Amino acid sequence: MSERVTAGVVLIGDELLSGRTRDINLQQIAQFLAPLGIPVIECRTVSDEEDHIVEAVNALRRRCTYVFTTGGIGPTHDDITADSVAKAFGVHIGERADAMAILDEWYSRTDTPLTESRRRMARIPDGAALVANPVTGAPGFQLENVFVMAGVPKIARGMLEDIAPRLTRGAVTHAVTVSAGGLREGDIADALRALQDAHPGVSLGSYPFFVEQPGGAIKRGTNLVARSTDEGELETVAKALEALILEAGGIPARIAE
Amino acid sequence: MSERVTAGVVLIGDELLSGRTRDINLQQIAQFLAPLGIPVIECRTVSDEEDHIVEAVNALRRRCTYVFTTGGIGPTHDDITADSVAKAFGVHIGERADAMAILDEWYSRTDTPLTESRRRMARIPDGAALVANPVTGAPGFQLENVFVMAGVPKIARGMLEDIAPRLTRGAVTHAVTVSAGGLREGDIADALRALQDAHPGVSLGSYPFFVEQPGGAIKRGTNLVARSTDEGELETVAKALEALILEAGGIPARIAE
Repeated sequence: MSERVTAGVVLIGDELLSGRTRDINLQQIAQFLAPLGIPVIECRTVSDEEDHIVEAVNALRRRCTYVFTTGGIGPTHDDITADSVAKAFGVHIGERADAMAILDEWYSRTDTPLTESRRRMARIPDGAALVANPVTGAPGFQLENVFVMAGVPKIARGMLEDIAPRLTRGAVTHAVTVSAGGLREGDIADALRALQDAHPGVSLGSYPFFVEQPGGAIKRGTNLVARSTDEGELETVAKALEALILEAGGIPARIAE
Repeated sequence: MSERVTAGVVLIGDELLSGRTRDINLQQIAQFLAPLGIPVIECRTVSDEEDHIVEAVNALRRRCTYVFTTGGIGPTHDDITADSVAKAFGVHIGERADAMAILDEWYSRTDTPLTESRRRMARIPDGAALVANPVTGAPGFQLENVFVMAGVPKIARGMLEDIAPRLTRGAVTHAVTVSAGGLREGDIADALRALQDAHPGVSLGSYPFFVEQPGGAIKRGTNLVARSTDEGELETVAKALEALILEAGGIPARIAE
């Protein structure tokens, strides 16, 4: 039995904490890593302040197999992630020739001046490996088990593709969702608890939903999600979920993942 | 000068870390608190595990004026937030008469059996004040500076309304967004840095955007966001942003908040 492979996520940016922007990178990273058998076990969202970034990166890189950060690696004054990660590791950071060559090539192709600010994007901590950015050129980097990515979701997605081959894979967690139309959580909670107790190898989650219909009526129900690395046991539990929903007077429906 | 009033947010739920659900509560809470002068300074997303919840709540309740948690207060086996918060404070938790009276009244109105599982929603830590739930009855609670709310966004929103009068207000941070159509971050980064240095009382953020147009062309630009509690200085900086965008050959446009 190999050790569990896990991920932590650090989302960096004042715009996330102010409510200006609704994050999508946590979901994107989690969905990307799931088929690789790497579950995200914690996420911290921090402001563009060095000590906050340092603390979050240091906490999670000790706790998780891998850490993924998003945001703060652009050319502007509020982009301080590279320097903060270098500080977290206690290593030197400076302009690196390999990163500068990428920027040079990228900007010369479009006749864009390589300003002092743009040169900052070639600042890479000592010992780090670069992460390719297929969208806007400026690279991210990997320092030990920490991957530093852009905040723009499309760029982060491209960087994940470059990172994937470097990751040790774990046991893939499979999920089955059975929707219990018409039932509230409380209608099935007792039966659900008994099922969970009988299957400690499966994680059962219960999520009520309220959908407003055309005309204003509210359609209620509860989604039951079973998760496990054991597909056989998962199927047994999924069938038991359908049975307990019927028993409680609801209408079970499997939802494709 | 009064002390700065701040908030921390703890989002609780495996479904957020698995990528099944994209969180909206951080944005909702931040946008609700902003007009009250209470900025969110950190957010942690944790799984439905007691030690993770305890650690996050304890870290943030010491660092922030207020902490808001969402998720894990329903009737099912995976709802362990109330017990975890009691443990974080080291206080006893048990079924409380005032909470039970609310459930009794709510469920008897709809002829719904008050099952063992539903009774769990009356478990409230000693010393906590209840938070009203206008959507489904079962209350949240306040223990010292920690507010425990539901995860369903509509219910969390209702609970925030009940909580608002209990909060000490701080200085409101105002924001102005000036969009720089056609400019990349690097085109204005040097000028932006100089403007930031000249106005340390204003926080300047720079956010590139890429919008796919009908037909497939990508419209690029950068949104510049200035934030300050001083509206006069903010207007000065907003005008300076418009000027530096024009200077760089872009088209400035203020975006209403």
